[in-house]
Amino acid sequence: MDIMQSSLEKHKEWKGKIEVISRTPINDRNSLSHAYTPGVAQPCLEIEKNPELSYELTRRHNLVAVITDGTAVLGLGDIGPLAAMPVMEGKCALFKEFADVDAFPLCVNSKDTDVIVDTIANIGLSFGGINLEDIAAPRCFEIEAKLKQRLDIPVFHDDQHGTAIVVAAALVNACKVAGKKIEELEIVINGAGSAGIAIAKHLLNLGVGNIQMVDLCGILARDTDYENPAHAEMARKTNRDVRHGVLADAVKGADVFIGVSKPGLLTPEMIATMNEKPLVFAMANPTPEIMPDLAKQAGAYIVGTGRSDFPNQINNVVAFPGVFKGALAVRAKDINEAMKVAATKAIAGCVPEDKLCAEFILPDAFDRSVAYAVAKAVAQAAIDSGVAGLPVNPL
Amino acid sequence: MDIMQSSLEKHKEWKGKIEVISRTPINDRNSLSHAYTPGVAQPCLEIEKNPELSYELTRRHNLVAVITDGTAVLGLGDIGPLAAMPVMEGKCALFKEFADVDAFPLCVNSKDTDVIVDTIANIGLSFGGINLEDIAAPRCFEIEAKLKQRLDIPVFHDDQHGTAIVVAAALVNACKVAGKKIEELEIVINGAGSAGIAIAKHLLNLGVGNIQMVDLCGILARDTDYENPAHAEMARKTNRDVRHGVLADAVKGADVFIGVSKPGLLTPEMIATMNEKPLVFAMANPTPEIMPDLAKQAGAYIVGTGRSDFPNQINNVVAFPGVFKGALAVRAKDINEAMKVAATKAIAGCVPEDKLCAEFILPDAFDRSVAYAVAKAVAQAAIDSGVAGLPVNPL
Repeated sequence: MDIMQSSLEKHKEWKGKIEVISRTPINDRNSLSHAYTPGVAQPCLEIEKNPELSYELTRRHNLVAVITDGTAVLGLGDIGPLAAMPVMEGKCALFKEFADVDAFPLCVNSKDTDVIVDTIANIGLSFGGINLEDIAAPRCFEIEAKLKQRLDIPVFHDDQHGTAIVVAAALVNACKVAGKKIEELEIVINGAGSAGIAIAKHLLNLGVGNIQMVDLCGILARDTDYENPAHAEMARKTNRDVRHGVLADAVKGADVFIGVSKPGLLTPEMIATMNEKPLVFAMANPTPEIMPDLAKQAGAYIVGTGRSDFPNQINNVVAFPGVFKGALAVRAKDINEAMKVAATKAIAGCVPEDKLCAEFILPDAFDRSVAYAVAKAVAQAAIDSGVAGLPVNPL
Repeated sequence: MDIMQSSLEKHKEWKGKIEVISRTPINDRNSLSHAYTPGVAQPCLEIEKNPELSYELTRRHNLVAVITDGTAVLGLGDIGPLAAMPVMEGKCALFKEFADVDAFPLCVNSKDTDVIVDTIANIGLSFGGINLEDIAAPRCFEIEAKLKQRLDIPVFHDDQHGTAIVVAAALVNACKVAGKKIEELEIVINGAGSAGIAIAKHLLNLGVGNIQMVDLCGILARDTDYENPAHAEMARKTNRDVRHGVLADAVKGADVFIGVSKPGLLTPEMIATMNEKPLVFAMANPTPEIMPDLAKQAGAYIVGTGRSDFPNQINNVVAFPGVFKGALAVRAKDINEAMKVAATKAIAGCVPEDKLCAEFILPDAFDRSVAYAVAKAVAQAAIDSGVAGLPVNPL
């Protein structure tokens, strides 16, 4: 039985991958009077006087909503909000398993940006953070930007920022192994969707040398007009030398290929034209832009993919649980660039120097210490960058 | 330390009364591949093909949202959405403790009926049912009515219908003890807010003889004009003899007093004017319309209150967990009148005939068999009245 079929069978057994439990037994008049009426009136009144106490007297301090509109689910595309829920539940299970963060799955039955924003903003007080998930570009940019303005809690589109954090961590360690300097890197990102753009922005924040972004229309360049405002913005921020052409042109002399595109788009011939010790992160799912063995044969020095059956799996699960745990720990009002950079460095730092090598540039997805290391770094960065509230959750 | 203060201390210890847990351990590549990518794609695709499978492959089959706008919280009034959350969490804990139903608390940060309706309707696919809670009248009527039209899952305002179900169950058993016939009862309901109106409608469905509703303006009567459309409707449906006057006039010769009003409004002198064996349900919280000992001295045959420190506590907790459990069990599309009547009869039936007496007309709030008896009856009524989907949850 293949994994798809056995997963379906497991889902039938599980009957839901998350469950809401009570943290207090209610089995006599005394416990009922404390957890519910009449006693519950007192915490209500305290929160009415001081809204910040909602973080101490309800579950808000540890609670994230995982929200989708179902328009860009895995590689499946626009399968709709209801069909997206198994992924959202899975994400919530990961939050709990990896970081002991409570996460609750919600789907919004609309494709209208403002409807989605209003809906989420209206229930925002129920949560300590919002994890947006599997929302199609370019809608996802506007939804995230508007929610960040409207809500006083962290809003984070994991497909963008979680991916960017992990790719950057892989790159930081790959540079150590290959003896390359971050600030001198020539990088090609193939795919200028939400993940590609988020990766580019994050790498620019890390101070990389130069980035070229390649999409269906070729290399993004500032002397070209783009209908998509996100492409226009990235054309201005990347491609220092205003190069033109297709992927094969872009990769000539490049140190790094980052693929968030389609299977098979990177050829051995292209790798042969790259700079010495080329770094190849081919993350198309389930089939990468080039298979690792082929990339290695063509001269790739380090190869990473999204797959668990090859070395160097580039997997968001090392990022988002710790990022939210850290943000929640200090009641951060935002997850800002400084916190994302801190997460990247913390993830990279989770690979011990003596084990770091071309086949081991990222911590294992199941290393339970990662989320806590990331949380500490993110919490500190939130404090240092001035977006923390009162620190309360122990880390 | 009084109960309010000790409840506050408990809330600080609990740090939230609910928690979202994972139902599947994720600790190696195999479990990750089943619970998340790539395996999770299969249940997604199955639900895309057949939306009904969301009840089998996600938690929806056992999941209720407990939603408020914070405008009518306990006896505290309009304390706002955030301050209402301890009550919502408590309700969710009760759902889990009493019926093993997963319930998740949400607050909507708006007082606009249409905004509240849109917000809840937009996330409705995430749940198997919606429990509205502590929403002020008359907004609560319109919100519930509109959501019932927009959503294909049960929507139930517990402050109305849960209360009505339990009061009616108390009345059914009180009649047995007092030797009164339901269809001959003369009933006075003091308080024509959402609970009073819901009680009246439900008692009419049960076939009681006559009801008079009394509000600040006196006995509702069909020859009077009312600004409040709910009062106009109830004036038409009640007060067969078109009586006028105040509470003291209404109770003359009545069999039953039902108070959902204010402390102290029913006097011993009024009880003395009632029919033989008067039944008094004085449910103002925390202080009843008349204290039980005083009512008894004045001739009340059976007295019930909302309080746990007197016999015959009239408490919604014997209703809502089982009502939703039953509705979810058969994927009911609605909670209709037939299901509420079934719940009333099931609750009344949970008091063994040989124990039934003036001091014991309702099952104990902590009798764990009640929710399951109610669920069975409600599920059967849903099937019989044609609102059930496919039966799946074992009862």
